[in-house]
Amino acid sequence: MHPYRSHTCGALSREHVGQNVRLSGWVHRKRDHGGVLFVDLRDHYGITQIVADTDSPALALLESLRVESVVTIEGNVKARADATVNANLSTGAIEVYARGATVLAAAEELPLPVAGEQEYPEDIRLRYRFLDLRRETLHANIVKRTKIISAMRRKMEGVGFTEYSTPILTASSPEGARDFLVPSRIHGGKFYALPQAPQQYKQLLMVAGFDRYFQIAPCFRDEDPRADRLPGEFYQLDLEMSFVTQEEIWETMEPVIGSIFEDFAEGQAVTPIGSFPRIPYDEAMLKYGSDKPDLRNPLIITDVSAHFTQSGFGLFEKIVGGGGVVRAIPAPGTADKSRKFFDEMNEWARAEGYAGLGYVTRKGGEFGGPIAKNHGVEGMEKIYAELGLGADDGLFFAAGKVDQAAKLAGVARNRVGEQLGLIEQGAFRLCWIVDFPFYEWDEDEKKVEFSHNPFSMPQGGIDALNNADPLTIKAFQYDLVCNGYEIASGSIRNQSPETMVRAFEIVGLTKADVEERFGGLYRAFQYGAPPHGGMAAGVDRIVMLLCGAQNLREISLFPMNQRAEDLLMGAPAPVSLKQLRELSIRVVEPAKS
Amino acid sequence: MHPYRSHTCGALSREHVGQNVRLSGWVHRKRDHGGVLFVDLRDHYGITQIVADTDSPALALLESLRVESVVTIEGNVKARADATVNANLSTGAIEVYARGATVLAAAEELPLPVAGEQEYPEDIRLRYRFLDLRRETLHANIVKRTKIISAMRRKMEGVGFTEYSTPILTASSPEGARDFLVPSRIHGGKFYALPQAPQQYKQLLMVAGFDRYFQIAPCFRDEDPRADRLPGEFYQLDLEMSFVTQEEIWETMEPVIGSIFEDFAEGQAVTPIGSFPRIPYDEAMLKYGSDKPDLRNPLIITDVSAHFTQSGFGLFEKIVGGGGVVRAIPAPGTADKSRKFFDEMNEWARAEGYAGLGYVTRKGGEFGGPIAKNHGVEGMEKIYAELGLGADDGLFFAAGKVDQAAKLAGVARNRVGEQLGLIEQGAFRLCWIVDFPFYEWDEDEKKVEFSHNPFSMPQGGIDALNNADPLTIKAFQYDLVCNGYEIASGSIRNQSPETMVRAFEIVGLTKADVEERFGGLYRAFQYGAPPHGGMAAGVDRIVMLLCGAQNLREISLFPMNQRAEDLLMGAPAPVSLKQLRELSIRVVEPAKS
Repeated sequence: MHPYRSHTCGALSREHVGQNVRLSGWVHRKRDHGGVLFVDLRDHYGITQIVADTDSPALALLESLRVESVVTIEGNVKARADATVNANLSTGAIEVYARGATVLAAAEELPLPVAGEQEYPEDIRLRYRFLDLRRETLHANIVKRTKIISAMRRKMEGVGFTEYSTPILTASSPEGARDFLVPSRIHGGKFYALPQAPQQYKQLLMVAGFDRYFQIAPCFRDEDPRADRLPGEFYQLDLEMSFVTQEEIWETMEPVIGSIFEDFAEGQAVTPIGSFPRIPYDEAMLKYGSDKPDLRNPLIITDVSAHFTQSGFGLFEKIVGGGGVVRAIPAPGTADKSRKFFDEMNEWARAEGYAGLGYVTRKGGEFGGPIAKNHGVEGMEKIYAELGLGADDGLFFAAGKVDQAAKLAGVARNRVGEQLGLIEQGAFRLCWIVDFPFYEWDEDEKKVEFSHNPFSMPQGGIDALNNADPLTIKAFQYDLVCNGYEIASGSIRNQSPETMVRAFEIVGLTKADVEERFGGLYRAFQYGAPPHGGMAAGVDRIVMLLCGAQNLREISLFPMNQRAEDLLMGAPAPVSLKQLRELSIRVVEPAKS
Repeated sequence: MHPYRSHTCGALSREHVGQNVRLSGWVHRKRDHGGVLFVDLRDHYGITQIVADTDSPALALLESLRVESVVTIEGNVKARADATVNANLSTGAIEVYARGATVLAAAEELPLPVAGEQEYPEDIRLRYRFLDLRRETLHANIVKRTKIISAMRRKMEGVGFTEYSTPILTASSPEGARDFLVPSRIHGGKFYALPQAPQQYKQLLMVAGFDRYFQIAPCFRDEDPRADRLPGEFYQLDLEMSFVTQEEIWETMEPVIGSIFEDFAEGQAVTPIGSFPRIPYDEAMLKYGSDKPDLRNPLIITDVSAHFTQSGFGLFEKIVGGGGVVRAIPAPGTADKSRKFFDEMNEWARAEGYAGLGYVTRKGGEFGGPIAKNHGVEGMEKIYAELGLGADDGLFFAAGKVDQAAKLAGVARNRVGEQLGLIEQGAFRLCWIVDFPFYEWDEDEKKVEFSHNPFSMPQGGIDALNNADPLTIKAFQYDLVCNGYEIASGSIRNQSPETMVRAFEIVGLTKADVEERFGGLYRAFQYGAPPHGGMAAGVDRIVMLLCGAQNLREISLFPMNQRAEDLLMGAPAPVSLKQLRELSIRVVEPAKS
């Protein structure tokens, strides 16, 4: 017999009754029923109930052991009495009568309980992550994460992609977030950088003639801690295709990502593959007030500016007259809501830094509130008719400059949806956001800037760049959104050297700047670059959604804390003077900030 | 029709004759046969011959294009005349008559030819890697590499392993090679390190109760350039198992790695799975003079010291009398070799820094050379009888202290095998080397040191550590060797805190040292660590063997040069003062070395 186990702790069932078995695992729980000791023995695969009574030679040893000690049990499989069968456990029909026990590793007093999973301070959990990871939910989340990533690989290969690993020690990227730097020993005073994303390498792969690339790619950004991003590293499902249109990318990736959701949603609803809405950016900003709309929320925002060009409600008339807009967010079935509900919404908007959220109440067809009073019943009825609202529906208004009003309407839509319990539960609602603007107006710098990715192809190509108002040009650029989160982003790339230079000229950069900053890629484009495009999906975000987790640390193996410290391994840490000398660097006083 | 292609350049065959198709790709070669232009159009999937005659509207454009330009061709598939069918090409039965052509990207004059693959200076190849990667052999090697890695993943999952990614920003490791360091911005003066291997993390995963871990793991060592290691990063197939014996690891991994060789050997012989020899380290050092024996070489070294305890050949008698050894390396069928062959072997050994390589010649049963003369015919015949050598076989001798003689015998075995053409061609011969010594004598420091991995479990456990001569203790440690290369290495780990402390005490370290240097792991071992072990296989080395490549750059996507520079992306590079200030470091004059 194997020295440690004939079966795992998740393997035994009624069919094994009568067999002599050997199991190894951790002492998960012990219950002493007066002369009979029950031990839940746990390993990666499950839990098996061990029984030791006063006849068992293992009783004394098992009684003496602390939980989380590692032990080998030899014993006989017996059927449990019907009343004690545990249907929640794969091994719940049997128990193992211990004939012998061997301690493989005795555990000290635990700093963190494993069984039960009560809340525990984060620094303890991270310092003793090896114990935390034994806990049921986190252990299961990590296993689910690995299965999702494995399925991503399998599905990508299934549609003809090949995984290529791109370098991790690479060049500092002049755009984007802050790089992690790595001092070069051989070239004192020079530095490598860890990649923020393999963007340039994947494009170079296309220029090198590899057709369908993907990678579960580690990415690194030295950003200040944020609730929705772990310090340090994160993973992308990164991909790129040659000789491709954006429609083909959507048609290729919708089944991949859609089926990941289907496979791991555990019964929750998922937008059917092939029917992810494709919503233009402008429409998303109008109808949802966001380029990351949560489609579980049925509320739709409507522009009602035209109703207020002449209105007894002077404020809105003035805003519309000044080029602003009024956006309406329905609050259906709010006849029974008190005035307080509406006022608190307005106060919340003010607290968020907006001018305020106007509203109209309605009960049995009767309008209430100052806007309705000033605008008039007839005018309100016209709006209600246009919006298809009924006799007991309220309405909120976000008014102001277009961007501000859209944004307020968007957050108000979320809040109204939540407060009224309208958000569809147990569902993943996916959509594509398409036709992003290529440029935007930078109010601080008073100049045109790239909206998102400067490497994207502008719709209309060099003609549009030469002839159109830059702020009207769309890019072949798209996001994939789920339940209000951006889970992927991509574009068709600008692979024409002339178009690339022209695109950068519009934001005030020269050909020489392009050559200096993106030399590798720009040089490559001189020698036959195929049309190409792709996207990158956030692995951590997708896993978090599918695990129903609220914090990235609940789906990450060895995360750093919010201070970017690895409490388990003790990183970062001081290094020796010898190491610094070899790298031609010296530590100086931290910069004042 | 798709705007870029109805088919790839590897898809068309006789069954498509008569169809109108659209292809996109690179102009690989052009041949002008007086009014008829032949273009080899290439993409990732293959090459299709395009024909444009004087009737074709595409002729002028195709004539004007430089090779490596990217073009879309519309045309009609025609069968080639039997005489012009190219059996080496998947599309060799057809050609496409171009009706139209569109330039997607015109190529400039090339710095490096793509077709033909003549030798080219490495700096040009690396600077224009995107062109180099289009070349047939390198492109095929990279594709084979990706297939090997994908197969590794599939096979590991097939035997119950799960892939976990461990952190890349981690703590500096106090043992082993030099770390790459990453300055922390938030914690000025402190540094992360890139992992040399995920050794501690994978052991922590076992302590956390994950049973079978693997990872295609990026590893980083800041070592000086070596012919057989690329600067910077390399990849390991890293794995770890719990509740496992070393035999179980061998039985699990032999089919995985063996089948990788079988699947990708392209007809070459592979040692059958289940019959990889398991050779104890001591035996390997004796019989092959190496712990990385090339078993394609049939020559076996024999210790013949006993024959020389009393010998007319005083030098050997003196060596044996002084505790040294004499090792014999057969040189079969060398009757027709001149004296020069033997003398040159001796000169080579001296040039390599050894005292020299003695020899005996034999022709038609008659011995020659000074050793035979002094030792005597009768004595020589006894040696020949013991070694099973015949009337026309020569014999080399390596004599001296055990380690030196073994090493010389090993390199002589390789050289004799090569010079006599005895190395089996077209074969991958695999074996396990087992029972490595746990400690060794450090002659410089005059103390006992760990031979290899201080985390390995000594055979005999703490009893052996307490009672045996350290230099006689073996470890549960093993290598997997192919054709003279170590391709994997592993061990059963020492997971007992007491045994770990005792093992370090023997090399002069205290419990406090262990706690300070391996705090994360040592702390984890207090709370129930299962018996565990594993190994790590060198992905790059395995790919290199299976591609038959002589240089790691021939199987790597974007390698750095021997000066650890990425010539394509321009790394390492100077960074801004702002970046340095944020990281609380300053560049100083490189250390004199």
